[in-house]
Amino acid sequence: MPLDEIVEKIKPLSEELMTKARERQNNLIKPPGSLGLLENFSIRLAGIKGEIPAEIGKKLVILCAGDHGVVEEGVSAYPQKVTAQMLKNFVSGKAAINVLARQVGAEVLVVNAGVKEKIKHPIIIDRPVKSGAGNIVKGPAMSRQEAIRAIEIGIEVTEEAIKNGAGIIATGDMGIGNTTPSTAIISVLTETPPNLITGRGAGLDDSRLKKKAEVIKKAIEVNQPNKNDPIDVLAKIGGFEIGALTGVVLAAAAHRIPVVIDGLISTAATLLAVEIAPLACGYIFSSHLSEEPGHQIALKKLGLEPYLLLKMRLGEGTGAVLGAFIIEAALRIFNEMATFEEAGVSREAK
Amino acid sequence: MPLDEIVEKIKPLSEELMTKARERQNNLIKPPGSLGLLENFSIRLAGIKGEIPAEIGKKLVILCAGDHGVVEEGVSAYPQKVTAQMLKNFVSGKAAINVLARQVGAEVLVVNAGVKEKIKHPIIIDRPVKSGAGNIVKGPAMSRQEAIRAIEIGIEVTEEAIKNGAGIIATGDMGIGNTTPSTAIISVLTETPPNLITGRGAGLDDSRLKKKAEVIKKAIEVNQPNKNDPIDVLAKIGGFEIGALTGVVLAAAAHRIPVVIDGLISTAATLLAVEIAPLACGYIFSSHLSEEPGHQIALKKLGLEPYLLLKMRLGEGTGAVLGAFIIEAALRIFNEMATFEEAGVSREAK
Repeated sequence: MPLDEIVEKIKPLSEELMTKARERQNNLIKPPGSLGLLENFSIRLAGIKGEIPAEIGKKLVILCAGDHGVVEEGVSAYPQKVTAQMLKNFVSGKAAINVLARQVGAEVLVVNAGVKEKIKHPIIIDRPVKSGAGNIVKGPAMSRQEAIRAIEIGIEVTEEAIKNGAGIIATGDMGIGNTTPSTAIISVLTETPPNLITGRGAGLDDSRLKKKAEVIKKAIEVNQPNKNDPIDVLAKIGGFEIGALTGVVLAAAAHRIPVVIDGLISTAATLLAVEIAPLACGYIFSSHLSEEPGHQIALKKLGLEPYLLLKMRLGEGTGAVLGAFIIEAALRIFNEMATFEEAGVSREAK
Repeated sequence: MPLDEIVEKIKPLSEELMTKARERQNNLIKPPGSLGLLENFSIRLAGIKGEIPAEIGKKLVILCAGDHGVVEEGVSAYPQKVTAQMLKNFVSGKAAINVLARQVGAEVLVVNAGVKEKIKHPIIIDRPVKSGAGNIVKGPAMSRQEAIRAIEIGIEVTEEAIKNGAGIIATGDMGIGNTTPSTAIISVLTETPPNLITGRGAGLDDSRLKKKAEVIKKAIEVNQPNKNDPIDVLAKIGGFEIGALTGVVLAAAAHRIPVVIDGLISTAATLLAVEIAPLACGYIFSSHLSEEPGHQIALKKLGLEPYLLLKMRLGEGTGAVLGAFIIEAALRIFNEMATFEEAGVSREAK
């Protein structure tokens, strides 16, 4: 579905179902509110699905990959070719995301949205917009048309995944250098100076960290993205996997599927999605709080609360897939606990 | 095994194995440190088990229950009989802990360490020290001998569980009114005035919250527990399920089994355990941060970092069982991820 149609399709959560779900939560055999966010999650799920679902359905990680010309400025601790190397590991099942997906019973879908090298593997969804985004210090990451195409790749793969039974989607990313464009996007959309939110990514030392903040500042100055036009922001200072993830979030919301976002890159993509379609926000769950300093401020802008504090900063969807498992737990609590009446438990204080 | 022998049996973690584990972690295909606490957990597991285990083994929640005479002071929002009513729900599988245990693939063991009513059910481990602890505002919760017996009940059930294959133990509690003695213990052992750390428990209003803080203050004044003698603290202002949980922690540590603690009550029991045997601390993982204000200060004293921020305050082991699943995930990361060499991924920055 084209971007404008997807945006049109995103509707508010069902208040009626949320009220109904809240009533049931308050009758389950526990002090009301004592399961904290697990209660809130289940209530929101009812509003998302428009019914109280019996099961969460298939858990899926959509991991989008892309490369970044800005790597030539020395903003990453790893060489660019690692992006393509890691894609091979994602399909061989030996990367962190594969292990955590197995642990929670999720599947991983790998999408090439714009990796520099040619990728050939039967189970990678190979739809690159282009072989790597431009160096944002020297000009835009991509054209406006390419930005829309990147988002639509995310929409396409998500719609296909939902057709194939995905019931909850976790977002993941791979792209050497991609904390640089993500931090630039967060800087522009939250109006925060880059030096306050630039992080070490995969492990920069102090001098390269300082350099990275300068690169981000310069990229914004050179490109002058219009903060009121999220497509322009993506085109000028974004990346292909970031755009694709924006599309994943929008498509999930349009089809009333909960989407659990990962760390810095996924959250930058989500900021763009919510600028494009504010109603999408109700469908989004945050998961962990990344060690990247820009993450917290981006989540705050979205009004989302992270609930896993694991000091992670890997990406790939590693936080999101654990987060999706917790959302599933919240739904099971809702469906499988007894009410006070059913259980014959006293409520009145003596 | 008697308490003194268990204490004797607790040894330091294996530094050698932890060094070995750290080396492997740094060779896995991710930036070193990027999986944050998951990396630390796996390293500590190696030190705990004295080997790098292939699997975590059976996940078990040990849920200890007891009643509290102090309930007659109006410190709880629920009547005392709910303790026994909830035990029936734990065995029928309809309580929150049962649902979450099913979600993570754990079993639940229910132990009556001192509930007021007689409990008869084939799958409840029925070893009450006595039918409820004394009202701590009027005198001690129990005698010194009973305190030791409570701890030894926890030791017994844990040793039996380990014999039956438990590989990781999550602690849980049930006992109407038990945030009152737990907060009293934390107040004494962290030297914090009760009014700063008294919480609403299952849901007190403002005036009853104030009353509860006064009850705790009075209980400490009346009983004068010796803060350098943890058995005395347990006897004077504790409870039977708290003592049993102290025993669970000590026995797990003695047998080199990781133990994941839950919220306020489990953490008060753990403070006592670590006062009795400081080396036990290495075997303990915290899980969630409870909404009870005393929890954070108790964890800080233990030097443990919570990693689930779900705003829960239910007990039963609901946070701990989710926490144990994350510890299992950390071990799988360690065992199932490829190294850079195995995967053919470049390390050197360009």
